[in-house]
Amino acid sequence: MSAAEETAGGEPQPWGEVNPEAARRLLMAAVEAFAERGYHATTTRDIAGRAGMSPAALYIHYKTKEELLHRISRIGHEKALDVLRTAADSEGSPADRLAEAVRSFVRWHAGQHTVARVVQYELDALGPEARAEIVTLRRQNEAAVRGIIEDGVGTGDFDVPDIKGTTVAVLSLCIDVARWFNVGGSRTPDEVGALYADLVLRMVGAKK
Amino acid sequence: MSAAEETAGGEPQPWGEVNPEAARRLLMAAVEAFAERGYHATTTRDIAGRAGMSPAALYIHYKTKEELLHRISRIGHEKALDVLRTAADSEGSPADRLAEAVRSFVRWHAGQHTVARVVQYELDALGPEARAEIVTLRRQNEAAVRGIIEDGVGTGDFDVPDIKGTTVAVLSLCIDVARWFNVGGSRTPDEVGALYADLVLRMVGAKK
Repeated sequence: MSAAEETAGGEPQPWGEVNPEAARRLLMAAVEAFAERGYHATTTRDIAGRAGMSPAALYIHYKTKEELLHRISRIGHEKALDVLRTAADSEGSPADRLAEAVRSFVRWHAGQHTVARVVQYELDALGPEARAEIVTLRRQNEAAVRGIIEDGVGTGDFDVPDIKGTTVAVLSLCIDVARWFNVGGSRTPDEVGALYADLVLRMVGAKK
Repeated sequence: MSAAEETAGGEPQPWGEVNPEAARRLLMAAVEAFAERGYHATTTRDIAGRAGMSPAALYIHYKTKEELLHRISRIGHEKALDVLRTAADSEGSPADRLAEAVRSFVRWHAGQHTVARVVQYELDALGPEARAEIVTLRRQNEAAVRGIIEDGVGTGDFDVPDIKGTTVAVLSLCIDVARWFNVGGSRTPDEVGALYADLVLRMVGAKK
């Protein structure tokens, strides 16, 4: 298993698809730098230095600092969408699928909290085109969860007076795990996921 | 009503207590700059410039950039604690008090989302002493909400298997409103507060 595939909190790192290895190393260095100092305080020189490369070597792979953030944000959102869609499309009752969506979305935000923070807090630093692309991915994330909730309301398994607002709240609860989750803390990503699945089933009034 | 007391989302600005007026103006300029560019990318010169003052004038009021962040973070946390304690100490059933705590905490995070983002996302930039003080305030915030939930479990009004974890989730849900709340969006702070109070009463299994 290469450095890029090492696990954090039991989740595989999301950068396996980024090639060549130098491009991957730069992306991981950018995540660290943005998380520590913020996007605007980070230079491409800082990122190259963290990756043990020269600024000239960075420009072979990424034309601008924004391109790095855009790539990180796209991969982060695509992996999150993948996790949610897998749960949404799985077998089982709406309650089973919603619980699985919450468990895996929480595991992602706990295990990848550094990536998730960059992706969530630096959205405003993207230019209009990149931002529009990410906003589309976010709408798809929302649609995946909303679809499960609508199914549950349709079958009478859930009681949800405000489907849109409840969908936003469910995603928000899971995303904020990235802010407070502490690797040295008392709960594992799986434990937080199990608690949150239970809380979300209560939020949608799931029949027991 | 002075500029410092203007309302945003129906909530009074929290800087009324900061005097003289120049110190208050600098604090508000620092909030804007930190929110836009991040703490590390902001200089005291930027902050002075936004406040229409010279760097020398800034140093009369604040010795360092960290002192500004510390002051913002302390005031932000104290106001949030005030909001939670008022609800916790009010008359009414545990459900009434928990609903009121959620409504007012959400209103704060929606109405003051710029301040709240700085306070929540730049915590790591504080030095050890300032950080310890803020961590104490955060524990007090948590204790206020946990107290209401414990009361409800004690009276049999709530059904909560994991009080500590549920307390963290309730606060987290409300805090994350600061990330996604959009002044031009379709819901007012009061509307989000009402929805969230209902969702939180479901999370604690409140009897109807």
